Amino acid sequence: MTRYRELAPPPRTIMTPGPVEADPRVLRAMSYPMLGQFDPAFTALMNETMEMLRALFATANGWAYPVDGTSRSGLEAALAALIEPGERVLVPIFGRFGHLLHEIALRYGAEVSVIEQEWGRVFDPQQVIEAIDRVRPAVVALVHGETSTGQLQPLREIGAACRSRGVLLVVDAVATIGGVPVETDAWQLDAVVGGTQKCLSVPPGMAPLTYNDAAERKLLARRRIERGLRTPEGGEAQAARQIADAQAGMLPRERHIRSNYLDLSQLQDYWSPARLNHHTEMTSMLYGLREGVRLALEEGLAARHARHLLHGGALAAGLEAMGLQLYGERVSRLPVVACVRIPDGIDGEAVRALLLEQFGIEIASSFGPLKGMIWRIGTMGYSCSRRNVLLTLGALEAALLRHGLRLPAGEAVQTALQYYTRSEGI
Amino acid sequence: MTRYRELAPPPRTIMTPGPVEADPRVLRAMSYPMLGQFDPAFTALMNETMEMLRALFATANGWAYPVDGTSRSGLEAALAALIEPGERVLVPIFGRFGHLLHEIALRYGAEVSVIEQEWGRVFDPQQVIEAIDRVRPAVVALVHGETSTGQLQPLREIGAACRSRGVLLVVDAVATIGGVPVETDAWQLDAVVGGTQKCLSVPPGMAPLTYNDAAERKLLARRRIERGLRTPEGGEAQAARQIADAQAGMLPRERHIRSNYLDLSQLQDYWSPARLNHHTEMTSMLYGLREGVRLALEEGLAARHARHLLHGGALAAGLEAMGLQLYGERVSRLPVVACVRIPDGIDGEAVRALLLEQFGIEIASSFGPLKGMIWRIGTMGYSCSRRNVLLTLGALEAALLRHGLRLPAGEAVQTALQYYTRSEGI
Repeated sequence: MTRYRELAPPPRTIMTPGPVEADPRVLRAMSYPMLGQFDPAFTALMNETMEMLRALFATANGWAYPVDGTSRSGLEAALAALIEPGERVLVPIFGRFGHLLHEIALRYGAEVSVIEQEWGRVFDPQQVIEAIDRVRPAVVALVHGETSTGQLQPLREIGAACRSRGVLLVVDAVATIGGVPVETDAWQLDAVVGGTQKCLSVPPGMAPLTYNDAAERKLLARRRIERGLRTPEGGEAQAARQIADAQAGMLPRERHIRSNYLDLSQLQDYWSPARLNHHTEMTSMLYGLREGVRLALEEGLAARHARHLLHGGALAAGLEAMGLQLYGERVSRLPVVACVRIPDGIDGEAVRALLLEQFGIEIASSFGPLKGMIWRIGTMGYSCSRRNVLLTLGALEAALLRHGLRLPAGEAVQTALQYYTRSEGI
Repeated sequence: MTRYRELAPPPRTIMTPGPVEADPRVLRAMSYPMLGQFDPAFTALMNETMEMLRALFATANGWAYPVDGTSRSGLEAALAALIEPGERVLVPIFGRFGHLLHEIALRYGAEVSVIEQEWGRVFDPQQVIEAIDRVRPAVVALVHGETSTGQLQPLREIGAACRSRGVLLVVDAVATIGGVPVETDAWQLDAVVGGTQKCLSVPPGMAPLTYNDAAERKLLARRRIERGLRTPEGGEAQAARQIADAQAGMLPRERHIRSNYLDLSQLQDYWSPARLNHHTEMTSMLYGLREGVRLALEEGLAARHARHLLHGGALAAGLEAMGLQLYGERVSRLPVVACVRIPDGIDGEAVRALLLEQFGIEIASSFGPLKGMIWRIGTMGYSCSRRNVLLTLGALEAALLRHGLRLPAGEAVQTALQYYTRSEGI
């Protein structure tokens, strides 16, 4: 039998759109010993996490908790709960992750209508509103920050339009939560799904989400109590379950929420004071999420958003000073991912490999039509720092020089330093 | 805004059927810094983990990898992939987790037939084989170690019967993997799902599984390449995808695997050398799983199984010496969970609370018909130690005395000590 070595990951500066470097305080929290899932010391942590997530999502919603899986598990849980088979769903697509929403909605039996925007731009809200009036969907599913193209979709007008028409709006805020304002209540978003491994700087493994009363009403109407948990036990729980059972009995099978693991009606019972047994909450990930959100709130959301703007701005200024071109519409740029055109004649993957192998710095490639055309450089969470921006600019310049590109050597880092000095002057 | 305190979980001795205490070396591994998901240093860890999981599951199967969710996510992924809507599925139920398999199979559109065994016993394999011949299912889904009743179902004859009839056998080995022999190949099991938070002593958050060629053929026939990943890129990947796309185009929608997050055909592409983008692998959990499995293999599976037998035996002997009755059939007892009848006149929950609050020791209550009737005391993974068994017996005795039970004080711990001495003599 082979003997495997002890774990020893090489040190990395991670400047991708995720997973990014985790805050060491989050990693420390994750190394604490276990608690049982129904230990009052643990359920208190769950309740605190719900409170903190409400603040993070800027909402007074009753429900704000993590789904126990990576980001797309939260997207799937929201869509599985809020789309009934045969319902019309509108998915406006302006990058790779819009296609994912389309895919998931199709798998849950939706009649999906799509509108597509050229990659590198976002929708004028009026385009989306016109499509809503044409398609008359039950649900609109939309990406907020599209990391494949580095674009940020404004949501306020779309939220108001959905609300006034009784359409549920489900938002993928995986890339934006904790780095860019996400105003669940002010923008009238019905369900919002975040990610841990991007601007929150918690390792991948959970998908915090929130949803409002309208969304809850819809998912409760499709509730189904799990077999093996239906045994009468007396008290309020029993009464509630009998009602639910009766409803379940009347529901045709295809109206039920399909997934058991990703069933929000079961998850909310588990996160409620009833603590109805479902999965075993991910102990260490919950420790990490609680610590990550705690640190975000301690920094202050406004300060945190300003930090992401600052370092994203310094990086962009440095890249342009190097003579590189940023990709996509300037006004709608997502401040936490810079998309950079790979210069003609440069092998993008060879440059990435040189950065990783020689400098221990990781930047990202891209998807689909942009593959080989742009790099994506993230400034997210704990990775979003002056040190990382300066080191990355210097290393990228060196890698491009090494690959024979003619560029104004030294300019990038000087420009970023100047950017910081100027920003401090304000 | 409330200020939340730094995390400080109280120390616990966790003697439940999971989550149990994590090995501190696993927690240390989980506190290492992040690596990007496509960083060669990380994909090497993924590949090593697959190799180690093959050894853990005692299989030569090509596929052995974790699903990124808690145990039931792996069960759902296996059933979602291997059950086509309308297919007949047989679920033999001898406890709470059999009902879960029934529930999941129903949600994925199976025509489920159930046979039930009285709780506290397992099936005679002939009963299951007769039901297979009566029902003629496409899939049999069966629990190996039922933690709700502390019973262990023998699988060898059922495996042989399924294989000879062309029926796929899916096994829930969540409670047994790493603590009790699980012989995937020797017992002819087609798909086996394990858990991390029980005998492996890794925090909850992943569901390692394995499946063979027959299972893979079935799930590949239902494969669907995700939207947004279908852009031609040339080379072999393109050819493979075009074939899959053509197949997907011909498949009626309801034949596709329903879940996207839990789609094994996509997960295996992500775990294959193609590394087709799906979710973002849970970095810290993968570190933890790799370390947990590495430690299990280093201890040696036979030695590890013997350790679980030894401490389970000592605990049972101590409990009986205290005058307590064990629940369920003796010959089929699962060695890693002792089910103990709560003595007449004793409030089981009050005793559990006293143990937790005064001694920092957690034991478990139970489900459904056994609620209030038995306690469940686990001896799993890192929690399965002489120290924990002796401390638990002493504390439980004290708690019962405190609650007014008449019992032979001192006997339990003395009997366990003697049990250890005798076992060492052999």
